[in-house]
Amino acid sequence: MKKAMINSPLGDDVMGEDPTVLKLESMLAEQFGMEAGLFFPTGTQSNLCGVMAHCHGRGSEVLLGANAHLCLYEHGNLSTLGGIHSRQIQERPDATLDPSTVEKMIRADDPHFPRTDVVCIENTHNVLGGVPLPKSYVDELSKVCVENELKLHIDGARIMNACVAMNVSAEDLCENVNSVSICLSKGLGSPVGSVLVGSSEVIYLARRQRKACGGGMRQAGVIAGAGIFAIENNVNRLADDHARAKVLAGVMKSAGFVIDKEPQTNLLFFGVPEGSRLTQDDVIEKASEVRVLFGGGYSGGTRCRIAMHKHITDGCVEKAGQILKDIATGF
Amino acid sequence: MKKAMINSPLGDDVMGEDPTVLKLESMLAEQFGMEAGLFFPTGTQSNLCGVMAHCHGRGSEVLLGANAHLCLYEHGNLSTLGGIHSRQIQERPDATLDPSTVEKMIRADDPHFPRTDVVCIENTHNVLGGVPLPKSYVDELSKVCVENELKLHIDGARIMNACVAMNVSAEDLCENVNSVSICLSKGLGSPVGSVLVGSSEVIYLARRQRKACGGGMRQAGVIAGAGIFAIENNVNRLADDHARAKVLAGVMKSAGFVIDKEPQTNLLFFGVPEGSRLTQDDVIEKASEVRVLFGGGYSGGTRCRIAMHKHITDGCVEKAGQILKDIATGF
Amino acid sequence: MKKAMINSPLGDDVMGEDPTVLKLESMLAEQFGMEAGLFFPTGTQSNLCGVMAHCHGRGSEVLLGANAHLCLYEHGNLSTLGGIHSRQIQERPDATLDPSTVEKMIRADDPHFPRTDVVCIENTHNVLGGVPLPKSYVDELSKVCVENELKLHIDGARIMNACVAMNVSAEDLCENVNSVSICLSKGLGSPVGSVLVGSSEVIYLARRQRKACGGGMRQAGVIAGAGIFAIENNVNRLADDHARAKVLAGVMKSAGFVIDKEPQTNLLFFGVPEGSRLTQDDVIEKASEVRVLFGGGYSGGTRCRIAMHKHITDGCVEKAGQILKDIATGF
Amino acid sequence: MKKAMINSPLGDDVMGEDPTVLKLESMLAEQFGMEAGLFFPTGTQSNLCGVMAHCHGRGSEVLLGANAHLCLYEHGNLSTLGGIHSRQIQERPDATLDPSTVEKMIRADDPHFPRTDVVCIENTHNVLGGVPLPKSYVDELSKVCVENELKLHIDGARIMNACVAMNVSAEDLCENVNSVSICLSKGLGSPVGSVLVGSSEVIYLARRQRKACGGGMRQAGVIAGAGIFAIENNVNRLADDHARAKVLAGVMKSAGFVIDKEPQTNLLFFGVPEGSRLTQDDVIEKASEVRVLFGGGYSGGTRCRIAMHKHITDGCVEKAGQILKDIATGF
Repeated sequence: MKKAMINSPLGDDVMGEDPTVLKLESMLAEQFGMEAGLFFPTGTQSNLCGVMAHCHGRGSEVLLGANAHLCLYEHGNLSTLGGIHSRQIQERPDATLDPSTVEKMIRADDPHFPRTDVVCIENTHNVLGGVPLPKSYVDELSKVCVENELKLHIDGARIMNACVAMNVSAEDLCENVNSVSICLSKGLGSPVGSVLVGSSEVIYLARRQRKACGGGMRQAGVIAGAGIFAIENNVNRLADDHARAKVLAGVMKSAGFVIDKEPQTNLLFFGVPEGSRLTQDDVIEKASEVRVLFGGGYSGGTRCRIAMHKHITDGCVEKAGQILKDIATGF
Repeated sequence: MKKAMINSPLGDDVMGEDPTVLKLESMLAEQFGMEAGLFFPTGTQSNLCGVMAHCHGRGSEVLLGANAHLCLYEHGNLSTLGGIHSRQIQERPDATLDPSTVEKMIRADDPHFPRTDVVCIENTHNVLGGVPLPKSYVDELSKVCVENELKLHIDGARIMNACVAMNVSAEDLCENVNSVSICLSKGLGSPVGSVLVGSSEVIYLARRQRKACGGGMRQAGVIAGAGIFAIENNVNRLADDHARAKVLAGVMKSAGFVIDKEPQTNLLFFGVPEGSRLTQDDVIEKASEVRVLFGGGYSGGTRCRIAMHKHITDGCVEKAGQILKDIATGF
Repeated sequence: MKKAMINSPLGDDVMGEDPTVLKLESMLAEQFGMEAGLFFPTGTQSNLCGVMAHCHGRGSEVLLGANAHLCLYEHGNLSTLGGIHSRQIQERPDATLDPSTVEKMIRADDPHFPRTDVVCIENTHNVLGGVPLPKSYVDELSKVCVENELKLHIDGARIMNACVAMNVSAEDLCENVNSVSICLSKGLGSPVGSVLVGSSEVIYLARRQRKACGGGMRQAGVIAGAGIFAIENNVNRLADDHARAKVLAGVMKSAGFVIDKEPQTNLLFFGVPEGSRLTQDDVIEKASEVRVLFGGGYSGGTRCRIAMHKHITDGCVEKAGQILKDIATGF
Repeated sequence: MKKAMINSPLGDDVMGEDPTVLKLESMLAEQFGMEAGLFFPTGTQSNLCGVMAHCHGRGSEVLLGANAHLCLYEHGNLSTLGGIHSRQIQERPDATLDPSTVEKMIRADDPHFPRTDVVCIENTHNVLGGVPLPKSYVDELSKVCVENELKLHIDGARIMNACVAMNVSAEDLCENVNSVSICLSKGLGSPVGSVLVGSSEVIYLARRQRKACGGGMRQAGVIAGAGIFAIENNVNRLADDHARAKVLAGVMKSAGFVIDKEPQTNLLFFGVPEGSRLTQDDVIEKASEVRVLFGGGYSGGTRCRIAMHKHITDGCVEKAGQILKDIATGF
């Protein structure tokens, strides 16, 4: 990947002249069956500009899950920068939004109301368990959107994990979607970067907003090159991450940790053993002392999250399992 | 009231020189035990500017009920104009927010998050049944706010109804609250107008936002005069509205209409009789033909709302009850 | 006017059911040759919502005069609430914007730039001398706007003064304009209120923003009634205000006050006599002691402004002239 | 530089754990005599977040030059995303803002007005000729800011050019400034990136806004490493760029091109020879055919800009001079 980065031909991407960025954009647009792509420094910005492109008018509202990353972890930027009203829907246990609830929440044309413009979903859904959402669901929700002239945006920070886990192509999964934000970091292993794919018009509008947000970088090919490498080399191997998450979950369960759902992708959420005097912070601290790193604070502070990625081997998983077992029994 | 309007001494209120407006503002500030008041053309603006005053910094978030008027009927203006992120909490059956849920949703100091600045409640709570929220609840929520350095704002479009229904003074009810928006129209009978009360600092900031929103009127005393009249003459009589709502609810219940909760104030929500072929629109249309006017569309389109006010007499209630009975049995 | 107010039939204007408001709106729409009108509590809100209606998309820019009321005295609300970038053009000595300068400042379609959507002018131009801008100029600017797909908005806080001063009908003067905000207070004598006129589409969008800004009032007919009275009775008499401003200017000039331009409408700007020890504040204070009221702070604090209106008689002007002469010679 | 990039130790910069980013931030903070620094993907975002940090309250106004990059080329984002009102001041011929004009434009505390919070200057000033602004001017302006409780922000996209051209240290030049946005691309040769320096409080607030804007990158050290290399190796050599710009200007002047000001740094602005049939576009096109690349459209479309940088050698300059001469005489 480092070689790919320093050997990538460069240009000024603000002027649309960086061949590496252009290659990455068109590669992903094609994979997702979309007209165009746009490179961003982060998924936060890719989501923001994608949604702003769909909310091109004034007084817009977005419907999204109460546990969506867009609602929880992106500084409320749809509202604080974008001036878009966010309306939150409690997800069902399987991490989906009930399409009939979505439909009921669409606003009538009346000055009392903002105009419902977009529905956002997250695939895989991070904090509800790294859950991949199937094409049948995406299509069902898309039907509601089309009938009501809304746009459907996917926060696809981990969409490649969803594709691999469900054995579906990106093009099929996103057939009836208006835009997808795809992260190149995280499981795919790029240091930085995200790509938004959608229609040419959406990308035209998002490009304007990218400049406004300060995401129009100059010789961005230097990082886009890593993205191309990641897409070409690191997608299929995500299956290994998924398998390892399952293995570790099994070990941890047997050690008494609470595992609400068996991992379906690379994320493993767990709680401390019931009845244990261990707190979440204890587990995090003790594990970090031996370089097993993960974060807590999920589900109202009751769950930790372990994320598998390229640098986690079977050996790492075995060792981490042993360490967590020891922590559980050490109290 | 008309006499009061045309006999009020006037001045330029943008310059703080309209004596009638000043009198109304200080009268309500005193009644609510607050330092200062500010006159607005509407409750929508009074809410908006009150909340913006509390969200004086950048990147703010407000916690409020999913069925709050501020969330449902004010154009999403906290976000679309104010750039504030709104986070919605499902109310409990008694129209309150669970204080422990509120506490859990307060954001940590981290760039991923906006800063939680305000909790908004509505008293009485309109669409959940015109429910008055007791001082004990307001104080409990206030405690959470104080401990977490949040402000508590009451959308008091019908706060006088709450006071009368619970036989509590405005000052007591709002003892631990940072601001209240009080409507002079609706049950109190003024044609136009609302007053925000709060600390001098909040009113100073809200006055700036009032100008920005275009609510700084010139000889506003002409309408403030009606407000003074309403406060002086139309508060105690709200008890009659409440009694009439109960009476009508009883009649309608016996005619088969679905009444989820007995009215506690001036609002009566009902559904069409179960098993009836009548639709909501049928009832609204037939009643309107004989000048019994009310609106539908509540609770996902399953409930209508009847509002009592000064011009609805016992005779009106009797007649309306008869008409609604006839409609129910006519199918 | 007071009689007109209390005898006006009322309804709920948020629901479009107040007959007095509807009458005022259609009366002014017709006078200005526009499809529709919309009543607002203030001219600040009428301007804001009119411009926001034209800037319906995201990332808009407005071109306007550096001395426009919209730039100087409306809290920067186009930006602070509306998220619109303001670009200011220094006016020519006759209070107009050079159309070729306007044309040069229109942005190309490029992500570096916001999209130029609107040009705003003010007629009469308040702080540059109450200057009426002729139809020929408005049409010339309109041509630039049409050729570049921009909208032309007039802040017509005193547009009736412009019509009377130039003996032109509102319809003619605004023939090639997209929207006009007309104030009913100020010279016309209503206590409160403003009307925006424009195409049905602009009014549809402005009505949505009016709700968001908190300008959707309930029984607004009570103040709209005053507006109807003002339009029917107080327009032609503006000529008297203009004549009185000229008379007073003559007296003051002979007393040594600096009068940069002879008044063309109801506003008279002046500076203290050259070489005098008098400061602006001295003049304002001494005059106010004998109830001659006006404000200072114009042109970087070097000019005061006297405004004529319905309650200023020839006698008042004579007396004010004498008082100001005395002040000038008393130092 | 490429080696520096791929050998930089990495971490998650959103969590503050990327050592290379931390090193770059502290290195520049120290050079500028500031408490802290913050890495950004672009100068547009660094400016935006810096100004938003200073405009922490609601209803802010910024004073800046009418020809500032922030006004002309950053999508109006202070307003369209940041909700800040921009007030533009015509620069003096030497690219400075008259401090007494700045002082006069500061708003009084009155609801009619936004609150003036920041003055922005650009050093070097790009479109007015790449002009370096001396410490004496910066200090004079800073004095006005301090006395009026405003903050002074420098858009220092080319501040290293200013330091080298005026032989002043960054610390001295920015001694009395609240924040500086420093670009690592452009003359310094990094592919991507910018750093904001200021007080710890400003950086704390800017870091929050960076997340909101989508500039919080993960393993950003990969590009920060290039920035460190640039700061360590490419600053002193800017003098060569400046010298080459002067040389080329001399050649072009003798060939008849209009050079308004002799270049003081790396930017050279020119117009087509007077009386020539050549248009700007002709020159740009013909030069680009032989790979001499520069842009036009400056000063209302009358001036082109040539920028010197690391890859332009004396040989390039000589060749470009010859080519431009040929173009001038070929018509």
